[in-house]
Amino acid sequence: MQSISRKDLNICSKIKMKEAQKILSEFRGKQKLLHYYLAGFVDGEGSFSVEIIKHPTQVFGWMINPCFQVYQHEKNRHILELFQLVFKTGKIYRRSGSHPVLNFSIDSRRNLMEKVLPFFDKYPLIVKKSTYQTFKSILLMMEEKEHFTIEGFKKIVDLAYSMNQQGKERKYTKEFIFSTLPTSNIQESSETIRRNSLKK
Amino acid sequence: MQSISRKDLNICSKIKMKEAQKILSEFRGKQKLLHYYLAGFVDGEGSFSVEIIKHPTQVFGWMINPCFQVYQHEKNRHILELFQLVFKTGKIYRRSGSHPVLNFSIDSRRNLMEKVLPFFDKYPLIVKKSTYQTFKSILLMMEEKEHFTIEGFKKIVDLAYSMNQQGKERKYTKEFIFSTLPTSNIQESSETIRRNSLKK
Repeated sequence: MQSISRKDLNICSKIKMKEAQKILSEFRGKQKLLHYYLAGFVDGEGSFSVEIIKHPTQVFGWMINPCFQVYQHEKNRHILELFQLVFKTGKIYRRSGSHPVLNFSIDSRRNLMEKVLPFFDKYPLIVKKSTYQTFKSILLMMEEKEHFTIEGFKKIVDLAYSMNQQGKERKYTKEFIFSTLPTSNIQESSETIRRNSLKK
Repeated sequence: MQSISRKDLNICSKIKMKEAQKILSEFRGKQKLLHYYLAGFVDGEGSFSVEIIKHPTQVFGWMINPCFQVYQHEKNRHILELFQLVFKTGKIYRRSGSHPVLNFSIDSRRNLMEKVLPFFDKYPLIVKKSTYQTFKSILLMMEEKEHFTIEGFKKIVDLAYSMNQQGKERKYTKEFIFSTLPTSNIQESSETIRRNSLKK
C-alpha cells in the first residue's frame, strides 16, 4: 500500500475544508435546515458515549469521560470539517485500526455543555434520542459535581453502562468498578486528605 | 436464542408504526425540517445502488435493477416506518444474515422516478451526492429506453460499476457482461425475433 505523505495529507485536508466552507455558504440564511440535516446524519453515523477509565489521581480512582463523536471514511472528510465549522470546536483524527476512518470528536465538558447539548436539544434525534437523554443526564449530574459522592458516581456508572449495548464492550464490569469504591464518602474524604498530606 | 413468533413481530411492527406516526405528527407544518433530517440520515445509513443481474428473458440477457435503501437495526424500526410514511411507498424487510438488520427499500422504477428523485433533488445529500447523481443519470437513461441499445446498456453498466466502491463486490466483472453482448443491435434484434418465433 502506498503511504501518503504528511504534506499530501495537509493538502487533502485543505481541499476538504474548502468543500465544507462551500457547503456552509450554500446554507447561508438557512442554517436551521443544515442543522436538521446534521442531526439526521448524527442519528446514523454519530455516537454519544461515556467512558469510565482507571485513573489513579481522580476521585475514587476512575475518570468519567463523556464524548460526542461522528465517524466517516476519510474520503468524506468534508462532512466532518462541516461539523467542526458548525460546532466551532472539536478535533478530527484518524481512528486506530486498518480502516481509513476518521473521527470528529468533542470531549471537553465545557464544549459538550455549551455547544453539543444546546444543539441536540434544539435539533432533536430520533434513533439515538434515549441515548442522548442519558448522555445529557450524566453531563448535568457532573455539572452538579454529583460524581464526587459515592452515590452520584455509582448512578453515573449505572447510566453510562445502560448506554450503547448495555456496556457489552467495556473493559471493566460495573461490579468490578463498584468493588474498588470506598465504603463511605467520609472514608474517601479522609483517604484523600491522607494522600494529599503525604504528597506535601 | 429464543425465536420471536409472527404474532409478536406484528405487534412489535404496530408499536413502531405508531411511534413513526407520532414523530410525523410532531413535524406537522414543518415537513421541510423533517425532510432535511431524513436526507442527513440517508447520507449516513442509506444507499443508492444499481444491480446488474443475469436474466435470460431480458434484453441482452441482463436485468438492470436500481434500488434505494436505508438500513437499520431492527430495534430502530420506527425510523424505517417513518421513511415509508414520508415516501408513501417502499417495503421493510429483514436482511439475510445473522445480524438483526432491517432494510427499507424502494426498487420500482416508477416510484424511484416519481418519489425518490424529486425528494433528493429538493433535499440534497452531501456525502452521497455524486453516487446519487450517477444513480439519477442511470434512471433517466432507462426512462429514455437507452438500455435497449448496446451503447446505452454498456454506458449504464459502466456508470453502475463506478458507484459504491467501483463495483468491487460485484458477482460479474464488467468485461464478462460485455463479452456476452451481441456485436450489433441489429444482430440482437434478429436474435430476439428468432427466439420469439421459436416460442410460438
